[in-house]
Amino acid sequence: MTEQYAISPDEAAVRDVIEAWTAAVRRKDYHGILENHTPDFVMFDVPPPFRSDGLEAYKKTWDLFFSMANHPVRFDIQDMKVTAGADVAFAVANMGCTTPGADGKLENLDFRLTVGLRKIDGRWMIAHEHHSVPALD
Amino acid sequence: MTEQYAISPDEAAVRDVIEAWTAAVRRKDYHGILENHTPDFVMFDVPPPFRSDGLEAYKKTWDLFFSMANHPVRFDIQDMKVTAGADVAFAVANMGCTTPGADGKLENLDFRLTVGLRKIDGRWMIAHEHHSVPALD
Repeated sequence: MTEQYAISPDEAAVRDVIEAWTAAVRRKDYHGILENHTPDFVMFDVPPPFRSDGLEAYKKTWDLFFSMANHPVRFDIQDMKVTAGADVAFAVANMGCTTPGADGKLENLDFRLTVGLRKIDGRWMIAHEHHSVPALD
Repeated sequence: MTEQYAISPDEAAVRDVIEAWTAAVRRKDYHGILENHTPDFVMFDVPPPFRSDGLEAYKKTWDLFFSMANHPVRFDIQDMKVTAGADVAFAVANMGCTTPGADGKLENLDFRLTVGLRKIDGRWMIAHEHHSVPALD
């Protein structure tokens, strides 16, 4: 039973990378947002496009997000579970941000987030993000 | 350069688990769909709900899917990248299925899929699936 509740050093390191990334989003800090991402990174975002490959395309998804976001930016981890192995990890989270509603006023939006990571030269790097909301009925 | 293109035994095993799961979906085989999933499995699906925790809730997402699907069921991996470590893995895929359009006629739907896996007692198990389409503009 103990094992289930202990946080391994790898799990702690993965949490740190993901928390630092969300903090960088809240600061609109592109350097901080991108600094732990792999060159072959793949993004599935809430709005179109269907997928974005590579860091130039990833940067554009943040241009779009910041063009719609409030100040200060809300981008919060509400609940996150990290599964970290020796060299690969993934995280599953409920997230919160704000987005313009039909009337243009900003409203809270809950979204789902999955993050995939690889440990490269001892450092955890984000190789994949999948952000989404359920499709409308 | 060789390393980049070699498929490790773990990557091959993860591919087998995911391909077997999609084949079970196409057969509407609930036993096959569920047989490599962990009890603490978390699902983020295309339609609501926002998230489904555990295998009973997961099963209901397939009840919904099969109530809308064509015969034979389309549920295809179009492109998949597997990142497999010693004990944790994730997969990122472009997928295709069919879904009823606004007029009730079945149409092709491309969706994004991320799968998270853990190796338990030497066997790769699916601990997480995230299925989505981009939100409407």
